[in-house]
Amino acid sequence: MLDKLSMDEIITRALKEDIGTGDITTMSTVPAGQTINGRFIAKEAGIICGLEIVRRVFEIVNNEIQFKPLVNDGDAVLTGEVIASISGPAVGILMGERVALNFLQRLSGISSKTASLAKIIEGTGARISDTRKTTPGLRVFEKYAVKIGGGMNHRFNLSDGVLIKDNHIAAAGGISNAIEAARNSIPHTLKIEVEVETMEQIEEALKAGADIIMLDNMDIPAMKEAVAKINGRALVEASGNMGDKDLRVVAETGVDIISIGALTHSVKAMDISLKLY
Amino acid sequence: MLDKLSMDEIITRALKEDIGTGDITTMSTVPAGQTINGRFIAKEAGIICGLEIVRRVFEIVNNEIQFKPLVNDGDAVLTGEVIASISGPAVGILMGERVALNFLQRLSGISSKTASLAKIIEGTGARISDTRKTTPGLRVFEKYAVKIGGGMNHRFNLSDGVLIKDNHIAAAGGISNAIEAARNSIPHTLKIEVEVETMEQIEEALKAGADIIMLDNMDIPAMKEAVAKINGRALVEASGNMGDKDLRVVAETGVDIISIGALTHSVKAMDISLKLY
Amino acid sequence: MLDKLSMDEIITRALKEDIGTGDITTMSTVPAGQTINGRFIAKEAGIICGLEIVRRVFEIVNNEIQFKPLVNDGDAVLTGEVIASISGPAVGILMGERVALNFLQRLSGISSKTASLAKIIEGTGARISDTRKTTPGLRVFEKYAVKIGGGMNHRFNLSDGVLIKDNHIAAAGGISNAIEAARNSIPHTLKIEVEVETMEQIEEALKAGADIIMLDNMDIPAMKEAVAKINGRALVEASGNMGDKDLRVVAETGVDIISIGALTHSVKAMDISLKLY
Amino acid sequence: MLDKLSMDEIITRALKEDIGTGDITTMSTVPAGQTINGRFIAKEAGIICGLEIVRRVFEIVNNEIQFKPLVNDGDAVLTGEVIASISGPAVGILMGERVALNFLQRLSGISSKTASLAKIIEGTGARISDTRKTTPGLRVFEKYAVKIGGGMNHRFNLSDGVLIKDNHIAAAGGISNAIEAARNSIPHTLKIEVEVETMEQIEEALKAGADIIMLDNMDIPAMKEAVAKINGRALVEASGNMGDKDLRVVAETGVDIISIGALTHSVKAMDISLKLY
Amino acid sequence: MLDKLSMDEIITRALKEDIGTGDITTMSTVPAGQTINGRFIAKEAGIICGLEIVRRVFEIVNNEIQFKPLVNDGDAVLTGEVIASISGPAVGILMGERVALNFLQRLSGISSKTASLAKIIEGTGARISDTRKTTPGLRVFEKYAVKIGGGMNHRFNLSDGVLIKDNHIAAAGGISNAIEAARNSIPHTLKIEVEVETMEQIEEALKAGADIIMLDNMDIPAMKEAVAKINGRALVEASGNMGDKDLRVVAETGVDIISIGALTHSVKAMDISLKLY
Amino acid sequence: MLDKLSMDEIITRALKEDIGTGDITTMSTVPAGQTINGRFIAKEAGIICGLEIVRRVFEIVNNEIQFKPLVNDGDAVLTGEVIASISGPAVGILMGERVALNFLQRLSGISSKTASLAKIIEGTGARISDTRKTTPGLRVFEKYAVKIGGGMNHRFNLSDGVLIKDNHIAAAGGISNAIEAARNSIPHTLKIEVEVETMEQIEEALKAGADIIMLDNMDIPAMKEAVAKINGRALVEASGNMGDKDLRVVAETGVDIISIGALTHSVKAMDISLKLY
Repeated sequence: MLDKLSMDEIITRALKEDIGTGDITTMSTVPAGQTINGRFIAKEAGIICGLEIVRRVFEIVNNEIQFKPLVNDGDAVLTGEVIASISGPAVGILMGERVALNFLQRLSGISSKTASLAKIIEGTGARISDTRKTTPGLRVFEKYAVKIGGGMNHRFNLSDGVLIKDNHIAAAGGISNAIEAARNSIPHTLKIEVEVETMEQIEEALKAGADIIMLDNMDIPAMKEAVAKINGRALVEASGNMGDKDLRVVAETGVDIISIGALTHSVKAMDISLKLY
Repeated sequence: MLDKLSMDEIITRALKEDIGTGDITTMSTVPAGQTINGRFIAKEAGIICGLEIVRRVFEIVNNEIQFKPLVNDGDAVLTGEVIASISGPAVGILMGERVALNFLQRLSGISSKTASLAKIIEGTGARISDTRKTTPGLRVFEKYAVKIGGGMNHRFNLSDGVLIKDNHIAAAGGISNAIEAARNSIPHTLKIEVEVETMEQIEEALKAGADIIMLDNMDIPAMKEAVAKINGRALVEASGNMGDKDLRVVAETGVDIISIGALTHSVKAMDISLKLY
Repeated sequence: MLDKLSMDEIITRALKEDIGTGDITTMSTVPAGQTINGRFIAKEAGIICGLEIVRRVFEIVNNEIQFKPLVNDGDAVLTGEVIASISGPAVGILMGERVALNFLQRLSGISSKTASLAKIIEGTGARISDTRKTTPGLRVFEKYAVKIGGGMNHRFNLSDGVLIKDNHIAAAGGISNAIEAARNSIPHTLKIEVEVETMEQIEEALKAGADIIMLDNMDIPAMKEAVAKINGRALVEASGNMGDKDLRVVAETGVDIISIGALTHSVKAMDISLKLY
Repeated sequence: MLDKLSMDEIITRALKEDIGTGDITTMSTVPAGQTINGRFIAKEAGIICGLEIVRRVFEIVNNEIQFKPLVNDGDAVLTGEVIASISGPAVGILMGERVALNFLQRLSGISSKTASLAKIIEGTGARISDTRKTTPGLRVFEKYAVKIGGGMNHRFNLSDGVLIKDNHIAAAGGISNAIEAARNSIPHTLKIEVEVETMEQIEEALKAGADIIMLDNMDIPAMKEAVAKINGRALVEASGNMGDKDLRVVAETGVDIISIGALTHSVKAMDISLKLY
Repeated sequence: MLDKLSMDEIITRALKEDIGTGDITTMSTVPAGQTINGRFIAKEAGIICGLEIVRRVFEIVNNEIQFKPLVNDGDAVLTGEVIASISGPAVGILMGERVALNFLQRLSGISSKTASLAKIIEGTGARISDTRKTTPGLRVFEKYAVKIGGGMNHRFNLSDGVLIKDNHIAAAGGISNAIEAARNSIPHTLKIEVEVETMEQIEEALKAGADIIMLDNMDIPAMKEAVAKINGRALVEASGNMGDKDLRVVAETGVDIISIGALTHSVKAMDISLKLY
Repeated sequence: MLDKLSMDEIITRALKEDIGTGDITTMSTVPAGQTINGRFIAKEAGIICGLEIVRRVFEIVNNEIQFKPLVNDGDAVLTGEVIASISGPAVGILMGERVALNFLQRLSGISSKTASLAKIIEGTGARISDTRKTTPGLRVFEKYAVKIGGGMNHRFNLSDGVLIKDNHIAAAGGISNAIEAARNSIPHTLKIEVEVETMEQIEEALKAGADIIMLDNMDIPAMKEAVAKINGRALVEASGNMGDKDLRVVAETGVDIISIGALTHSVKAMDISLKLY
């Protein structure tokens, strides 16, 4: 669920970007009083995400526009399926159309991809997670789409999670020091995650009380060994070009989380169109 | 070239989104005075775009950071090539790293894709153009990347270009009426583009003085016929799922512009990493 | 027609500027529940512009205020004529009064002046245009007023039109180079306008494909010669202290557009008052 | 003197309004490294105002631009006089030119007009004041120009001054009640001004402790009578279409302040141009 | 009375600060459709302030929430008294709860303290005033709370009042010079206040026409002497750690205003809780 | 450590609030070129916090001002001790003075109070924590002050921590359901905290995997029993009017964290003054 304050800020910015100083085509050719109807139609199969955002786009443009979703976020649709209907002042609908579709297609693209990857690892106990490799300015929306697609979210920003990487370790003088420094400084409500590359590092991280171990770019045998060594003492996250790997095999190593930057940094928009009539 | 005011607004927003209330990992583990060096390295071949943005990201985070590009926007790089070097306060570099890469990878992905499509139609006289199917909030950056990749830009928003589509035509009572209404209303510095589906519509649009004819979802023979009929009296733009077509064949129909939404709505981020040492 | 997002931003800023930390006079002397009625009355003849803005000013201050226009934007009114009525909470009406009048008087002043100049050249085929010499922060509103007064708009900003001036020509190494450089770089939806001072420059500009020729500060005989030479191959715009010239004579040279900075940089507010009772 | 925070907000907004998504003419025709020189020249005589704003406009666009004023705000210049010189990157100077001139011409227009009116009443003891009839969004700048021209400022907004008008009086149940209500509610650092139309109202206002009496639309004999009656017990302000009156005669009635809306609502921009070479 | 524009800006900022990227606890545990009821209860006696702000907090979060105050701002409540009731969507109420209470408790703390100090000096003719020592970002709210508690407001910012202190006096070359310089520069609607430490300074300030004399850190006998010397020729304000003094004794010296920074810089929040059921 | 982007936003807002349309006293009495020196002096003993903020306040007002701290944030100072020196343009220093002190006094008040409470429980193993009961708009600063004073931070907002309270439990249908729902929905980097009132609830929360147990308003014997029951299986936080309790006794029950709203909702500003000379 998205909160209204975040939504309105992103949507308003998008509308201003697209409208500029005014929609000169629509304003010169379409009479002010004219109304119009339309349907949002899936041109390919996928998981829909962003309906509440679309509704709010049109409401901000002109609150007389009626937008009625026929499915819910997270529902699978087939090619040709009607996703939603719209009716109201033509000027407003035409002004909001592109922004609405830009959001809906991108977010549905993300949720569709997430769902397809989640399906691959179904039943293994592992879960798909996003990263901070999101489109600047759209993180809240894109992470919402990942959840809608059946994935889980990693931290939203640098302040709501600790992830100690090699440079932090080097700067702090070792894993133990880094974990201790973080533990003394951060809110007690946050876990501590450490990125490791070797079994020795895993041992040190566990000893220092790491809550999550991120296996960075390990091959499958190393992941298996790591999972066995950790043995439930911490959550295990697999990371590093996961988008290019056989996820089922990764999941079957026993890791808890597989985080995939490509979920949001390399999105294929879902093909959806608005047919007005 | 990007102007500083637009850049700063988008970059500042991205940094706030990523930093939240503070980079708790870096601030707790890295001493304030520590400095660090690094290199941005291409992990795959492509066309680089966004170096000035990256420079500004780090400058805003901490203006003591030195960022030195070794190539220019638009240069082709090979796998393993060093794109830029960076040095300065570790805290600042670690805080800005993800935002900088998110911009650089996305924009280089767009310019690389544009360049590869532009190469396909090289020598035909046609040019690749973007659309308004950009990521909300990043249009200025993404259209810049298309140009850097060798493409051209379509209108930036609804106020700096006229594109009369079927709904406008219906509302205005025909192509001639729509063109005349627009001509009387818009600044004289703008051309008028009309989207058509049939030869009859082309004839009517030309008669009414359209400057650009957009051929919407026509097959190759129809495009050829249209180009012949128009015969230089207007620019000709081919549009409609062009991302899935054989662009060379489309270009050889004689159209002037091929506009492709997928340039920006379905981007594969270029793989680039920052190696710190 | 003005879009709501632009309107709200400018109006909200104006209200904050005028209200500061609160209307201390009204809040201390007027009981919260008191209602009041009033009429907006023209104190001189003119063309009204800005009624939708006035309506929105009061709506933002207090959405219980009823504002009812009795004329439309673009209507001519006579001295003493009632333009609109208002009723509702006294506190809100008194708080919004000055901002509402500041907009209404300025925009009606612009539309009235535009209409009177347009009348002078009526029947000649030429049209009056504004420029970028608008009040900083109010461009969208002021250009709207020019249109309401029967004028046309020049470009809204530096990104939605190309106007190649002497410095651009010098920098690019001549008119042909400048036009070619622009053509290769700008969206294909935009025309190219070139400012010229001599017949030779006109020739070069036409040869290079200029869409619009701006005659800069030419005298009447030169304008006539220029129009004859151009002979329909480009639009012709007369510019340069046009506010001080005999516009009928200028228009009769055959130019298409006469652009006048004074339309917006030297405005006489129309005298309109709000009589409360 | 203007404070930097106010200046930057208004200037940045003006630049964004004018630049839009980029100065496409300059960016396509002028090489990035090119430098240029210029002079700001008065095309008519007047009082210059806004030089610090102009300096800041160019600094924000590109801080390598050197802007050197040759006169100070408030100085009188003659036709043809050089006001300032500028040199630096051509792209930046051309991008900032229009915004800089829009500010400089408007503010110099206001200070010139103020100075000419102030001269008319010189030696009478009366002073010229502005009103709240300023251009929305530019009040701080316009009131600064009035001061530079030798006028004084009335309140800047509804929170930094009390002006009890007829509607406040009616709502409060009389002048005495209104003044008492205000006195009990406002900060003790503010005076109380009351608008009156009759000698009786003056008497009541003085008795209730009004600090300033505004004579609203009185004729000359009435003003004289009012001044005599008030006899130094309060400041006296003459108001109501003062722009159309013989100010010397008004001033000689003995009023202290003559407030004139036309100083800011009906401005003729001073003719100033930037000659680049 | 607070104006809506100021309120909305401060409230929206507070909500964004508290909600961050979303209320993850509530969104994961509370069903979207669930409704809930609650009561705001005073856990200690005091003067309530901020009910309209609380109402608006919940309205912004979700306009289906019904907030019904049972008392008015300024009313005294006892321990255990119900201040207001609330009902509506549980998600929204839980999301807005903390922000609403943070405002309500702080402002009620200020009005309660003000009321208790005002009571001490009741009947003396002196009044309690606030200062500019308010919490950054909340000045309008905190000064409103002082008024609700029975105090009066000093200037809201540096532009709506003149207060000449020792450094201004030194810079201007004496009290007379400073007062004259200010008088020539400021709007005529503002009084001039001067901070003094000796009887000689009082004499000079009165001679130069000061409207208000601020006695800075004087002891009781000095205050009495100052009041006698001023003898009604100016308002007298006592200042300087007044929070630590016996206010009754200060008030009985005959000063008009006692300004107390601690009213807003050292606030004890009133204990109020929201009981949901 | 505070990041620059957050600092600048809060500081700029505070300066605008305080300066309004200009510091009319300083601008009219102090010559533009005059310089001045001063010292920030502690008028009471305490722990200093906010020096970097003060430095930035003056830098934003005028970057020629030199601010030199003589102590560091977190240092204890005695009455009369010089905290920092300042020199530069008088106009800028006088304009920034109040805002700088408002921040410095409030934050030093918070760090001083935190330090004194932390001292009480020294050696017990428990730590003092803040809450979300901070001043709206200043949370990042106030939580920084708590850390500087030796406390720790609880979650910064509703998105970077989970705290399941009675209403969430009721809505979710019990503690187990609530914890499971949260666990499935939140990022894996976050712990789950549950507020409990009884031993049964503790048992249920532990069974469901709660990471932190908040003991809400328990008396000392109950706290001891709870700590014994939890026995290291979760962190234990004591909460509920802790500001009024004997913290040493609370700490000796064995709880890990004592969270105290009064640290930030009921602050006594530290007395610090700027002496200019």
